Amino acid sequence: MTIVKAYAAGTAGGRFEPFEYELGDLGVDEVDIDVRYCGICHSDLSMLDNEWGISQYPLVPGHEVIGTIAAVGANVDYLQPGQTVGLGWNASSCMHCHECMSGDHNMCAEVVGTIVGRHGGFATRVRADAAWAIPLPDATDPAKAGPMFCGGVTVFNPIVQDDVRATDRVGVVGIGGLGHMALQFLHAWGCEVTAFSTSSDKENEARSLGADHFVNTRDPDGLAALARSFDMILVTINAELDWEAYIAALRPRGKLHIVGVVPSITATAFPLIGGQKSIGGSPLGSPATTAEMIRFAGRHGIAPITETFALSRVNEAMDRLRAGKARYRIVLENDIG
Amino acid sequence: MTIVKAYAAGTAGGRFEPFEYELGDLGVDEVDIDVRYCGICHSDLSMLDNEWGISQYPLVPGHEVIGTIAAVGANVDYLQPGQTVGLGWNASSCMHCHECMSGDHNMCAEVVGTIVGRHGGFATRVRADAAWAIPLPDATDPAKAGPMFCGGVTVFNPIVQDDVRATDRVGVVGIGGLGHMALQFLHAWGCEVTAFSTSSDKENEARSLGADHFVNTRDPDGLAALARSFDMILVTINAELDWEAYIAALRPRGKLHIVGVVPSITATAFPLIGGQKSIGGSPLGSPATTAEMIRFAGRHGIAPITETFALSRVNEAMDRLRAGKARYRIVLENDIG
Repeated sequence: MTIVKAYAAGTAGGRFEPFEYELGDLGVDEVDIDVRYCGICHSDLSMLDNEWGISQYPLVPGHEVIGTIAAVGANVDYLQPGQTVGLGWNASSCMHCHECMSGDHNMCAEVVGTIVGRHGGFATRVRADAAWAIPLPDATDPAKAGPMFCGGVTVFNPIVQDDVRATDRVGVVGIGGLGHMALQFLHAWGCEVTAFSTSSDKENEARSLGADHFVNTRDPDGLAALARSFDMILVTINAELDWEAYIAALRPRGKLHIVGVVPSITATAFPLIGGQKSIGGSPLGSPATTAEMIRFAGRHGIAPITETFALSRVNEAMDRLRAGKARYRIVLENDIG
Repeated sequence: MTIVKAYAAGTAGGRFEPFEYELGDLGVDEVDIDVRYCGICHSDLSMLDNEWGISQYPLVPGHEVIGTIAAVGANVDYLQPGQTVGLGWNASSCMHCHECMSGDHNMCAEVVGTIVGRHGGFATRVRADAAWAIPLPDATDPAKAGPMFCGGVTVFNPIVQDDVRATDRVGVVGIGGLGHMALQFLHAWGCEVTAFSTSSDKENEARSLGADHFVNTRDPDGLAALARSFDMILVTINAELDWEAYIAALRPRGKLHIVGVVPSITATAFPLIGGQKSIGGSPLGSPATTAEMIRFAGRHGIAPITETFALSRVNEAMDRLRAGKARYRIVLENDIG
């Protein structure tokens, strides 16, 4: 019997308090992970506030876990206790449906989120199906890698799924927790990268992260001047967008790819039809894509910019995230056991 | 000096009257085509009514032309007088931009419509750049082929552009001038095809054209039961759509592909993100894709269902189209010279 020490919120929007729970028997295809680090993602805040109506309390958030394999199920012979792994938004999928059998485990109809109806990584230990525990290469800094497993793969996956090429011109809307990783990935991918932000004071940092160009989106002329410019525009914000202007900024065959939970999408037919343009989205990434991302990030020295808090200071850390002050991702370090 | 006899409308929504105009000198890359047949497309009606604000009067519609090459420009050594060709919505593109040089002439920023600022095929003769005059294979019936060059390629092109595979499940929304050709193409492509229509009385015909399944879209439960079913849904109508229901009907990675000029598009982010789904469109087809379509249609015995009117009865024919009575495409036969 394992007792897990954790921080949980008892109500929507509530404070985190120490919380303990028992893990039952380990399934044959599962692993237990002793948490070393856990990122705080904006989705943890959304879940804390029950913004999507799927939260259960007491809620233990945390789905950007880096830790050490503590135990493996009877069928798991490809991971070993002591090995360092990462775990992201998803912790389980059915493994036999068309999507799972096609490598699209992240789109399995029965995919289970690490903190949806189960307890996550603001804790000493977390459990997941072994398929979703991705080994960390030796070269990867475990103290910074957590945010790659949710925020990172969320912006890496579109590059893979949309067959982005090094010759492409790609825009990134929003230079925050997601966007600052997208700039690094796209730069390393060989693309011509434009950062779109409402904050002019982010220009220097955006350029240092890989942006070739910077556009202040508060200047409507700036966007209008870029009509027919981009092969892909990756939308990482969750605010309203001037849809027509961004669609106009796409080249023929261009894709407006959404990973931020924007309130709504509106468009007219002619620009999509005339330019063979599309508006789409994608969810995180499959285990295989996540493993590729970690390898690619290691080869290119890509890592999130992080601020580290002790897990015992989780309330302070969450307040900082809620205030929009995190630059750019917060990582909690386990100091409770 | 060539005098062209035609039918033109002098005002938006006006009746067609006999009209003559002079063709100037033939450009080196142009051809003149003696019109034998010309389809009437819904776009001709939209242009007659100046629905898109781009019509010029007197307006000679007609952009589904089958005719005989009458003259070729000095640079045109790959088409010969006497040869039968088809001409669709587009009559010219710049031939040197990125899109033209990539085979995407239909998305050239300077592409010129056959009836936009020039006179079309409700006439004895029409002029176009040679690149857009597609030779008709001997096996193709010239009396029925006209509608392939606009309506046909409009629904064939999405199959090519979206890499539709024979294993795919594809829906066609709207069984009319476009949809009845889409069913034939998709059936011949090897797909599992579902027809969506508001008219139950079209079921038998839809099945005879290649639909494996028929869904009456006035039955909301019918669509709801098809959640997560389609790799592509091709929207050929220009009316409002229950966007969320159709997006829900897509499988993961599914595409909602619009070729009808729907009034507006609205969606929410989660279904697109969660299922890696997209909403997009496409315009007609390139010359190369159009030529492939004609060859494919010939091999598979695909042709539009047509009603034939003499060109001199163009007003009667247009009235029938406006009334929504055409089953499914009207072709005018040149009886004026």
